[in-house]
Amino acid sequence: MMAEFDYEGRLGRLRRGMAESGVDVVLLSVGSDLPYFAGYEAMPLERLTMLVVPAGEAVLVVPELEAPRVQARPDVFAIKTFGENEDPVALVADLARQPVTVAIGDHTWARFLIGLQERLPHTCYLPATPLTRTIRVVKEPGELGLLRLAAAAADRVVDRLRRMRFSGRSERELSALVRAMTVEEGHDLATFHIVASGPNGASPHHEPGERVMAPGDAVVVDFGGRLSGYCSDTTRTFHIGEPSTQVREAYAVLAAAQEAGRRAVEPGVTAESIDRITRSLLTQAGFGRHFIHRTGHGIGLDGHEDPYIVEGNREQLLPGMAFSIEPGIYVPGRFGMRIEDIVVVTNGGAEELNNSSRELLIVD
Amino acid sequence: MMAEFDYEGRLGRLRRGMAESGVDVVLLSVGSDLPYFAGYEAMPLERLTMLVVPAGEAVLVVPELEAPRVQARPDVFAIKTFGENEDPVALVADLARQPVTVAIGDHTWARFLIGLQERLPHTCYLPATPLTRTIRVVKEPGELGLLRLAAAAADRVVDRLRRMRFSGRSERELSALVRAMTVEEGHDLATFHIVASGPNGASPHHEPGERVMAPGDAVVVDFGGRLSGYCSDTTRTFHIGEPSTQVREAYAVLAAAQEAGRRAVEPGVTAESIDRITRSLLTQAGFGRHFIHRTGHGIGLDGHEDPYIVEGNREQLLPGMAFSIEPGIYVPGRFGMRIEDIVVVTNGGAEELNNSSRELLIVD
Repeated sequence: MMAEFDYEGRLGRLRRGMAESGVDVVLLSVGSDLPYFAGYEAMPLERLTMLVVPAGEAVLVVPELEAPRVQARPDVFAIKTFGENEDPVALVADLARQPVTVAIGDHTWARFLIGLQERLPHTCYLPATPLTRTIRVVKEPGELGLLRLAAAAADRVVDRLRRMRFSGRSERELSALVRAMTVEEGHDLATFHIVASGPNGASPHHEPGERVMAPGDAVVVDFGGRLSGYCSDTTRTFHIGEPSTQVREAYAVLAAAQEAGRRAVEPGVTAESIDRITRSLLTQAGFGRHFIHRTGHGIGLDGHEDPYIVEGNREQLLPGMAFSIEPGIYVPGRFGMRIEDIVVVTNGGAEELNNSSRELLIVD
Repeated sequence: MMAEFDYEGRLGRLRRGMAESGVDVVLLSVGSDLPYFAGYEAMPLERLTMLVVPAGEAVLVVPELEAPRVQARPDVFAIKTFGENEDPVALVADLARQPVTVAIGDHTWARFLIGLQERLPHTCYLPATPLTRTIRVVKEPGELGLLRLAAAAADRVVDRLRRMRFSGRSERELSALVRAMTVEEGHDLATFHIVASGPNGASPHHEPGERVMAPGDAVVVDFGGRLSGYCSDTTRTFHIGEPSTQVREAYAVLAAAQEAGRRAVEPGVTAESIDRITRSLLTQAGFGRHFIHRTGHGIGLDGHEDPYIVEGNREQLLPGMAFSIEPGIYVPGRFGMRIEDIVVVTNGGAEELNNSSRELLIVD
């Protein structure tokens, strides 16, 4: 379900960006740019859906059988349908009218880009994100409201997990419970539900499997869903029974690094500076080589989007940016741990959207 | 969960196809070609995963933090990881070694194709499907076994739906139940669960909403999931209480058309001939303009894949091809109805994978 936003205003900002950067036409298909600018999400199927945005009227090209799904917004875009024996790429090429420069949505299928390049071989094709990111990266108040709701729903799942028995369950079983609770607590959809126990915790994107959890396991639970289009994403680390001194000490370092990251957020500092702060604390404690990913990623309609909190990203944080802070420690063959919160940059620092306990959570 | 298949043999067939068609390198990323040929599915995230298949050794380029997810198959591919500050597109371009012609997976993100075109501007880029489809379109016995299991699980959901009360429930509520039952009956994942009631039934890809169902409604339920990677997809039309004569007569025509389609399947006939047979029966009865989509689509690792059962597709059916036969009647503002089965071409005709009742299913 999409909430109602000012799509006309958003498209106006996109057109100003196009004029400033010399882009004649923007083409948006699968992915989040299309719902952001037009309130409609393309089905990720073999029939092309594409919003054609020239300087003039925008047109949504959509398969005839999916036209009844589209909420008409005549102030925002016209609708052009095609039948089963028509070529939508030819339609888009006609509507684009021999542009010099096209910016095309990042997730558009390569097959459709190749088709367009055949039809419009003299056009220069650029990714759309450099244009769309500058608009999407600062969230509107209505978007922040939905991110808050999604984060609160995720926090309620964590609260329920703390009261559950982990020992004796497989990762797959607990993952299915996380998925179900993510929906029960208010998301429209659970999008991922990582449960990584014991040595599997050292794999940040572990696929939950048949491993049965037992006392002595650290268990990384990283999950999220979508609520009215907006994503949640939080990680907490559980421990079955009392942790060893080694695990407890590592966790204390991790928690301090994650807190330092949160505290460092304010307008004007660079994205990479947040990564450096969390990383330096982990490195000083000897865990640098066990922190094998960036500190965070932006979040909104996409689970991962700008701004990326990574070395090399020198963009300055602005009020309204929303992103994760999620350092981890991964010791191959032994254990993993991660703490992840979504924060929003405010004039005074950071608003923390996740507020479940950040302790190492002891469970049975 | 992927089952074990002969990935080495499949890559061998791909390399023979490359040699025959003058393709130097195949590049596979998100989508089903990668799991088909290498047994690994790329995460659809901003870090590139890409299998580089030249005439020599294949290499899987994968983010460092996802490398622990990859099941190593040293006979099939080598693994090359990249860190958070490295450019995977440069890595792929190096591994591809200035190819004249590249075939790139259809669903690869446009952003990565544009990046490759910048690095290798003299290369000709083609979609990979013309190469991969000829291998994937005829299913192996192990694949057919999984398609049968998935279809049987979907049939059990239909059997349970027949005993449920529809009246008084919203489409969204019934859709959530279909989603849950799809998993309960053995799928790893529910991928879609359309419930389209009353006038909403006239929208073939309707998004289930708040409409509360009531006596007199025809209700189209079209759903599917994935089981060990393979998809199910079936549609049955329910009716709350006794249908009108108009609905009953339309349904009789639809059922006859769908049966005629199934009966016409045999090796050597063209894909479009199946579409013509179902469509001609509907057209003769005056429903031609109310059947607004093709008759069917192939199914396997993808929910929609070759062969498409559509006018203009003159390819001949071969034993082992699997596809849907799913004519529908859509009367805008009034009602919709559809019957969908998955069939497999055999030497003798068609094996029907779905075997739940094809009657108009009367429910409370």
